[in-house]
Amino acid sequence: MMSTQAAHPALLIPGPIEFDDAVLQSMSHFSESHVGPGFVATFGETLSMLRQLFQTTDPASQPFILSGSGTLGWDLVSANLIEPGEDALVLSTGYFGDSFADCLTTYGAKPTKLEGPIGGRPQFPEIEKALSEKKYKLVTVTHVDTSTGVVSDLKGLVQAVKKVSPETLVIADGVCSVACEEIAFDDWGLDGVITASQKAIGCPAGLSISMFSGRAMETFKNRKSPPASYFASMKNWTPIMQNYEAKKPSYFATPSPQLVHALNTALKQILARPLSERFQKHKEVSDKIKKAITDLGLKIVATKPEDQSHAMTAIYLPEGVQIADVLPKLGSKGVIFAGGLHKAIATKYIRFGHMGVSVTDPNRNDVDKALDALKTSLAECGYTKA
Amino acid sequence: MMSTQAAHPALLIPGPIEFDDAVLQSMSHFSESHVGPGFVATFGETLSMLRQLFQTTDPASQPFILSGSGTLGWDLVSANLIEPGEDALVLSTGYFGDSFADCLTTYGAKPTKLEGPIGGRPQFPEIEKALSEKKYKLVTVTHVDTSTGVVSDLKGLVQAVKKVSPETLVIADGVCSVACEEIAFDDWGLDGVITASQKAIGCPAGLSISMFSGRAMETFKNRKSPPASYFASMKNWTPIMQNYEAKKPSYFATPSPQLVHALNTALKQILARPLSERFQKHKEVSDKIKKAITDLGLKIVATKPEDQSHAMTAIYLPEGVQIADVLPKLGSKGVIFAGGLHKAIATKYIRFGHMGVSVTDPNRNDVDKALDALKTSLAECGYTKA
Repeated sequence: MMSTQAAHPALLIPGPIEFDDAVLQSMSHFSESHVGPGFVATFGETLSMLRQLFQTTDPASQPFILSGSGTLGWDLVSANLIEPGEDALVLSTGYFGDSFADCLTTYGAKPTKLEGPIGGRPQFPEIEKALSEKKYKLVTVTHVDTSTGVVSDLKGLVQAVKKVSPETLVIADGVCSVACEEIAFDDWGLDGVITASQKAIGCPAGLSISMFSGRAMETFKNRKSPPASYFASMKNWTPIMQNYEAKKPSYFATPSPQLVHALNTALKQILARPLSERFQKHKEVSDKIKKAITDLGLKIVATKPEDQSHAMTAIYLPEGVQIADVLPKLGSKGVIFAGGLHKAIATKYIRFGHMGVSVTDPNRNDVDKALDALKTSLAECGYTKA
Repeated sequence: MMSTQAAHPALLIPGPIEFDDAVLQSMSHFSESHVGPGFVATFGETLSMLRQLFQTTDPASQPFILSGSGTLGWDLVSANLIEPGEDALVLSTGYFGDSFADCLTTYGAKPTKLEGPIGGRPQFPEIEKALSEKKYKLVTVTHVDTSTGVVSDLKGLVQAVKKVSPETLVIADGVCSVACEEIAFDDWGLDGVITASQKAIGCPAGLSISMFSGRAMETFKNRKSPPASYFASMKNWTPIMQNYEAKKPSYFATPSPQLVHALNTALKQILARPLSERFQKHKEVSDKIKKAITDLGLKIVATKPEDQSHAMTAIYLPEGVQIADVLPKLGSKGVIFAGGLHKAIATKYIRFGHMGVSVTDPNRNDVDKALDALKTSLAECGYTKA
């Protein structure tokens, strides 16, 4: 892999992340038939491994792996689990909650948005109040909003929903959380988690990955109207996923054998160690990063410690320091951070992703290098801690 | 690339096809930001190369590259270029025409299907008659139907439509034709061609690739209703594609840098030689294959020579020879063909794809090996030419 993985800057944006060599090597697997026994076995095994990753042993849970991106997961939810005219409660902690609401609207659902303050999240009393005032088919929540780094309390949310409106499905956008923040799908009683390949799972972008509960699948089966999407139709894909997992060839649309091989490799690496150890490691490294950033005198966008994700850190720039100055300075030191994304504060902050091999691989020095580069770059921009 | 591309059977199904080593190597490109200057330049160049591949110089033409599959192209057409209640004329030459009609129905359009006999295609007089009887927003045609190997006459079709119903958009499903059958987008007056990466373009599966005319884009802009899909919305994607092509970063949903790198490599290989030479080579090899198959006493599903595509050959098995016998015998000789897909004749035929490097790379012996393996395998099944 020398030529492709050769010296390159450390990609520390909140996805795509740095990928392991073996995962990238799987991307160049020789061409296989999408319905041949070799690939069918690989795809089936990959679907089964998702059950372990999401910590679900309920056989009624249904995994999906589709060519697409994290965004396609919103279509999967909006076109299959809710019908035109039905209400959805959208808990928004940034850009991605707002966009999920747009997607629901596209397919005819009626989203009601509950927004936290910038850097915060809607609180349980207001969520419970909203749920008691109207009948919601589903609640959506962004587990970690990639625009703000705010993490939501999924376990507490499901408990709140079950208390006030037990029929309401709870759907989490786990694009920036799956494989770095704990998700106990069965124990917590989640109905759906959608995610993508290129963040903490550590496989190149190009796959929409999701898990739905037996209850969510029943809700789909009981629809009065047909699914509102063709490419993202659970009617078209459910038998395909079930057949592949049973190691039987099946066809609706051609999957990407190379991406599925890479996902297979990434999941095997993740599942080779206890998940609890992985979550703990992400927490430790995140805590260290947050302390270093606070020690530098910088403010974190996610205000309260309990709202701060372990996947990434959104950092306000000091007064007078511009994104257009600091990102190139970081780049010249071999570190790539992302600019702001939340519309209201986009020019005022930068984002540091700390997921996957950059956190778990002891042979990498990505995080320390990034913290050093940040300190030096800010100094070069004229910043000194007050 | 030794480890990944090592000895493996020749994949001669009608997609995914065999991939060139350099293309597969691009799949394992190190991780890049989807909005960083390196990847933005690669994506922009790739979009521009699509204009050459489709032979369009009209700046109003709009290319799209989305994570997905060929099927997603149907959603792109059905959710953006036609509105609920409007009529579409679907010319069907097999499985894929039927499925395009299902996709149109999902988004509220009203497809009217014109089907050819199995192995044939609807004729111009009946197409013109249909167009004169009702106002159709668009006509769809499968350029090469992967289930039958029937090729349609795109140039003649556009002429017929322009004569009878000039406002009607002509949309071709080029999944099994782009980069092996000629498509002169501007000269012929096409309004849309949708395709995928894993067939004659020669890049692993995972991308929906398409080109729409200025007229199609105007039709989209003049919609009365909003786009009926979120992930496949031209409203969401058009500015992103235009920004990338202008080498400006832009974000709606995360693209797959690795797949786009591989597509970039594949397109550079294709465009390094005149396209006419590439089409001619596919024709020559296809003619040779069809002659060999006829010489063996076998029947081709596409009945008339002018209906036979140069991308693939669907071959009826001789009386008494079973798919379940012949495919494993081919496999043991290092050749993978596909089984039947057209529901009415699925158990009676096999499919031989002859696209891309298996046809154009003089260092490969895939086609001759396949013809030898077919002859020997049929003999082992007890078949002798009558």
